[in-house]
This record gives sequence, structure tokens and C-alpha cells, in this order.
Amino acid sequence: MTGGLLTDLYELTMAASYLQHGMTERATFSLFVRRLPADRGFLVACGLADCLSFLEDYRFAPEDIDYLERQQRFGRSTLRALEDLRFTGDVWAVPEGRVVFAGEPLLEVTAPIIEAQLVETVLLNHVTFQSLIATKAVRCVQAAAGADVIDFSFRRTQGVDAAMAVARASHIAGFAGTSNVEAARRHGIPAAGTMAHSYIEAFSDEEHAFAAFVGDFPDRSTLLVDTYDTLDGVRTAIRVARRAGLHHLPGVRLDSGDLGALAVGARRILDEAGMTQTRIVASGGLDEYRIAEIADRGAPIDTYGVGTKMGVSADAPVLDSAYKLVSYGDRHVMKLSAGKATAPGAKQVHRGPQGDTVSLRDEPAPPGTEPLLVPVMRGGRTIVSEPLSAVRDRLAGELAALPGQVTRLRAPETGAVRLSDGLRRARDRLREELISRQGR
Amino acid sequence: MTGGLLTDLYELTMAASYLQHGMTERATFSLFVRRLPADRGFLVACGLADCLSFLEDYRFAPEDIDYLERQQRFGRSTLRALEDLRFTGDVWAVPEGRVVFAGEPLLEVTAPIIEAQLVETVLLNHVTFQSLIATKAVRCVQAAAGADVIDFSFRRTQGVDAAMAVARASHIAGFAGTSNVEAARRHGIPAAGTMAHSYIEAFSDEEHAFAAFVGDFPDRSTLLVDTYDTLDGVRTAIRVARRAGLHHLPGVRLDSGDLGALAVGARRILDEAGMTQTRIVASGGLDEYRIAEIADRGAPIDTYGVGTKMGVSADAPVLDSAYKLVSYGDRHVMKLSAGKATAPGAKQVHRGPQGDTVSLRDEPAPPGTEPLLVPVMRGGRTIVSEPLSAVRDRLAGELAALPGQVTRLRAPETGAVRLSDGLRRARDRLREELISRQGR
Repeated sequence: MTGGLLTDLYELTMAASYLQHGMTERATFSLFVRRLPADRGFLVACGLADCLSFLEDYRFAPEDIDYLERQQRFGRSTLRALEDLRFTGDVWAVPEGRVVFAGEPLLEVTAPIIEAQLVETVLLNHVTFQSLIATKAVRCVQAAAGADVIDFSFRRTQGVDAAMAVARASHIAGFAGTSNVEAARRHGIPAAGTMAHSYIEAFSDEEHAFAAFVGDFPDRSTLLVDTYDTLDGVRTAIRVARRAGLHHLPGVRLDSGDLGALAVGARRILDEAGMTQTRIVASGGLDEYRIAEIADRGAPIDTYGVGTKMGVSADAPVLDSAYKLVSYGDRHVMKLSAGKATAPGAKQVHRGPQGDTVSLRDEPAPPGTEPLLVPVMRGGRTIVSEPLSAVRDRLAGELAALPGQVTRLRAPETGAVRLSDGLRRARDRLREELISRQGR
Repeated sequence: MTGGLLTDLYELTMAASYLQHGMTERATFSLFVRRLPADRGFLVACGLADCLSFLEDYRFAPEDIDYLERQQRFGRSTLRALEDLRFTGDVWAVPEGRVVFAGEPLLEVTAPIIEAQLVETVLLNHVTFQSLIATKAVRCVQAAAGADVIDFSFRRTQGVDAAMAVARASHIAGFAGTSNVEAARRHGIPAAGTMAHSYIEAFSDEEHAFAAFVGDFPDRSTLLVDTYDTLDGVRTAIRVARRAGLHHLPGVRLDSGDLGALAVGARRILDEAGMTQTRIVASGGLDEYRIAEIADRGAPIDTYGVGTKMGVSADAPVLDSAYKLVSYGDRHVMKLSAGKATAPGAKQVHRGPQGDTVSLRDEPAPPGTEPLLVPVMRGGRTIVSEPLSAVRDRLAGELAALPGQVTRLRAPETGAVRLSDGLRRARDRLREELISRQGR
């Protein structure tokens, strides 16, 4: 979905006014998360790829202009300017798959103010949502302590394109696969899945259903064993697999009840039958907290199927993100609103052994640090693009380097983030100036 | 987004197996919500329109088949069958904008089992998400106690098509407008909006910004007054409006701080200036709970702008929904899984003065009741379609008839739902039969 109308009305209203007043200078907007949700010590940057393709395609179609004309909100000259508008700006961003903290810019747009303003809504949407999900998914992977995790969320994400973004973000986070076939195709992710209860029920009984499935897919049958009674189901599965001549049934799936205890029972029955290679898949209401409870007790689960709660980031479905004007023309700007004051100017984040320093973009880098923001778009053209596997590998490396107190699931600490002296001075100077200019 | 790959892998796997075994009989699946989230006494049915257009368009494109072929999961004959597959089934559903309770079917699909199975994922997605949001939005409207409520959620919904669905669902729920221009165009909803802090900051000071905006849009300027200091901002707004010759500034918007107290202060200043018609818009972290707190104290707010928390249903971002096989061929089916047992057969819900009765579809209606499910698709063709305004009006009527203990925001009761004697008997009979057939 592209198009100039993918924006809030006020962006168009402000654009019309900027045009009216000849305000076409370049502005910089900074996109950041104000504070982390409870039980989050870090965020995983995600959503940049969708931002860049949105910016490259941004334009008003003739039917968009027609709609605006019918609304009679804007004059002819405004509509003509919108007709010709393209995004021609520059973007700096933290690459996807990097770990970031509150207050650090994830993305900065520098463009003629009208362009930079109009794209606010969609940029915020992609980065906020996808970073939220990538972060939630990483937590599931960490809780699983080496077991595979699979995305089963498609049916309960908040819309169909959300499901595509969730499959991608969770793959970046280290998920082994997704049940979402379209996402698998689109992003080159392994597709995964077992069978539903309805399959069992469509046959006259469980044993006939298992036999049919094993006959059709002998090398990748994971049989859902809880339709009637889970451990009986495991025994039936073993009987069917033997009859089909399989040394090892590929897998069984548990989808209800006490998953940890049932996994122990199922493992024992399978091992006694010599099916030591049969994998146990568990699903049903899982998130990182439940997975950790189960995994910490050593339950013999090989794969966790994670759905709804990961797909909407159920315990923290919201990130407090913002896209704020930080400079216009040659002037730094900031707002003073209660609890929402911002810091002025285009920025950089320098990461070093002492933590992160947020500074003005043109300040010199402290020795031994690495810049987080890199140029990703110039003059409206994307200049950096990378395969999903590179993003996934980057994140795995970042996570390995994070201390345990930042990554723990409950009440984590967050990374050290300080403001550079230059940024601090610029902020204090501007605040004083604004207060005196507003006559207080 | 349409296409056969908008499904979970296991649906395709099961379809391949059904084909292999000549299982082409008609099945009925029932979509319902197992239980309501905390603080929800009812749900608003929503999402049907997207389900129907998805079903009408359901097919595998040549590139979908190519992808599946490259995956080497399915044989030639399966792929050929998928190539020709269309949805040819019948659908009964509760119309959008009706109030429903847990355990009541929202939608039932009857079709050759392969078709009915493949569409599960997307049907669940649309109905679950959109009903969740419509319900959340209704609560905001109720809390606002007559003040207007506007959808400001686009930037923080879980994806861009989520924003379109949220704008539509919240309009059904009684919202007066949306900031989302594309949704406004697509669904014929009034577009609404004010200005951002960046607009103020792009000018040399607040007064110049206000003057420019009022000059451009004298009859619909709502000035954002909190960039530096809210009540100072109101005074500046009044000064600017007077200078522009306006008797009444159209509106001011408060976006931070104690909204209730600031509204009282702003109202007093405006009234003292004779601007009694100026509307006060409030926004910033609002949901039904905050709105109720503010409205209950009588704050003079005319319009609430509601964003993130409504757009993701933040306090309850998940609905425990299911799409369950209830009959195959001439046989009723059900599952017995721990905590997830289902009831067999195609159903109807009869609503009467004593509450709702869930029954088998072919049971006679109790006297004085009205059926909730109606036929909406026959042979893959939609037979019912209605304008959004009709859905919105229907919901307003339903809500007016609900008792206060069901609609209250905290710890509501839910509606009375009983199972008919016929459904109860069918369930008990089948349960016994299944248990004996599984040899327990």
C-alpha cells in the first residue's frame, strides 16, 4: 500500500500552509522511542526496509488528488504541488537488527519540510510496530534457551500485513520458521507447520487420521496428539508410525494442558518405544514468560510454536515513539511541552565500551566508539540494502554482547545512554532562548 | 492483499492430504470467541466485509503455484487442484455492528472441507482483530459521554492496513472522524485533524505560527497550544484570532499535562474573551479509562483525540478466538482437548428478552426471539452488503438497549447465554461416543 494519502490529515494541512508561506527549507525530523515498556531493557531496531520502500514510492495518484479536490480543503495550487511531490530527502538510520535504547534516534529524515512532514505517519508506524515485535520475539528466543521457536501468529495479528511484518521481524529475532506461507515466500523464511484438530476430526477417529497423514508425509509428519487425550494420542501416533515402517516418527505436537508435564510424559513414552529422535512441538498461549517457566524446569520440548502473544506483543502492545522536528533551515528547534521536551538538532549515537552517547551529528566521535546511525537514503534513493540473513546475523551478535541484567525477562536494567556535552549545551541554550522568546 | 498463500502452511498440508484421500465432502467451521478479556462485558461484531471480499477473491496466482512447486512439498496433482480452486461455499454470520458474547458463533462457513480449511487463517484474523477494536472504540465513545471522539491512531497501529481497519471499526463504533486520510477516502469517513508541534516550531515563534494558520484556514483552525506553555498558548491563540477578525477561534488543542485541569483553565480564558464557541480538543495517551476520569469530573472538553491505546486495544490486545470444525459430511464433530472442548454442528443464536440461546441451526426458534446469524454468502457469492452508515446505526441501537452492568468500563457483567436443549443433547451424545470410540 503506497500513496500520498497514507498520512494524517494535519500533515496535509500543514503542507498546504507551508506552501502558502513559501516555507520550503530543509527540516530534520528525529524518530525515537521516549521510554521502554515495563520488562524491556532494550529494543531491536526493525522496520527500516519498509520505510525506505515507502519513501521511494511516495506520491499522490490522480485519484488521491481527485479525492482531495472533492473535499474542498485545499486550493488548486496546493493540489498541483502535491501532484508533483516526491520524497527527495536524505535518511540516516540505525540498521535493522541493532539493539537500541530509549532516547536514541532510530531514524532521521532531512528533506524539504513538506516532504519530511507528510511521511511522518507511516515512518512512525513501521518503526514502532516492527521494533516492538522484533523485541518481543527476541525475548521468546532467549527464553527457549536453544530450542527452536516458530511463528504461529498469522491468525491473530492485527491485520494481514501485520502478519507479514511479524513473520519477518521474528525471523530477524532468530525464529526458525513461520506458519505464514505468504510471508515465507515473500521473505525467504522457512515455512513450518503441523496439522489442525479439524484434520483429526474429519476422519472417523484419530488413528485413521494419523495413518493417512503419515502415509502422505512420512518424512515430515508432526502429529497433533491432544484432540482427545494427549498421552493416548502419543501411543496411537507411535503405533501408526511403526505400522508405516518408520523407525522414528518425525514429531508430535502438544497444544493444550500442562505442556511441561505432558512433554515429560510424551518423551518417556516415545523413548520407551525407541523413538528417541521424535521431536516434541509445544504450542498454545505461549509467550516468553510461559516458555521460560517450561524451559527452566527442563521440559524436553524441541520446538515452541508461538502465536498471538508474540504477534501483538501482548504484554506491551505499544511503544511510546515520536517523530520530532529538530531543525528547520539553519535553526535548531525543540519543544518544551510537559513531560515531552525534546533535544534539538540532527544527532548521532556513539556506542563504546562505556555505553552510548547521543550527540549532535557533527560532533567528533569519542575515541573507541562506533556510530549507530548510517546514511541509508540520499536524494530519495536508497543507498543501503541488505539481505534478511545479514540483519539476523547482526542481531545475534549484538545480543550475545549484551549483559544479562539488560536481557533478563523481568525488571531488566537498560543500557547506559548519556547526552554529549555538545548536545546538552545546545539544548540548554535553546531552552533559555525559547522561554525568553515566549515572554516568560 | 489476496491470494491462496495467505494461509498457514498446515492448511495447505491438510488440503493436500484431503485431496489424496478423496475427502471432498462439505464441512462446517464455526468462528467464535472462547472468552472475553477482562473488563469486557460484550463484543461488537466487526470484520465481516473484509472476510467476504477475501473469500470472493480467494485463488492461487501462477506465482503462488510456482513457489509451492519450488518448495517440493506437494505433488503435481495437488498443485493442479490448487490452481483451479475457488471458494464456492456458504457463509452465515452475525452482521457487523451487532453486540455478541463469548461462545456465540460470529461466522460459520460451509464448503468442501479443503476450501473451508484454507481460509481459516484470514477469516480469524479479520474478525478477531476488527471485533476487538470496534469493542475498544465503543468503550471510548461511551466514556466520552456525548463529546466527540476522533481516531488519531494511524501512526501507532500494528501496520498500515491495521490503521485502515481501525479507522473503519472506530467509525462504526461512533467515532466522529479519523485523522487517517486514506481510510477517510476509502470508507467515506470524515477526515479530521489539527496541527503538529513541528508546525509551531518551524516558525520563529508560536504567535507567527498561529497567525499563519488562522490566515490560511480561518474557519477550521484548531490551534495546538501546548508547545511551550498551554495557557499562555491559549492567550496567544485568542490574540491572533482577534487580530484576524474572528469572533470565535474554531478550536484549541491540548496535548500534554493535566488535560482536565487545563481544559477548565482554557475554557475560562476563552469564555472571558467572549470565545464561548471555541471548541476544546484534548489528546495524548487517552483511552476509555482516562476519558472517563476526565469526563466524570465535568471537564469542558468537546472532542477527544484517541490514538495508540484504542488503535491496538492496549489493555486487551488479544481475543481468544477459534475456528472449529463442527461437522463433516453428515457427521457432527467436536474436540475434547483440555479446556478447549467445542460444541458440535452448525448453529444459530436466538436473541430474546431472556437473553441469548445458542442452538443447532435447524432447531426451531424460541418464540419472541430474533436470529443473530443470517446468510451472507451463497456459492461463493456475497448476498448481503450494506453501507457503513447502516452498520453504525445498528450498533448505536444495540448499545442503547444494553443494560448498564454489561456496558460499564470496569468489571462488567456479560450477557446471558444458554445452550439449547438440542445442542446440549447433541454435545453430550457425541462426547460419549468419542470417548468410547477412543477406547477410554
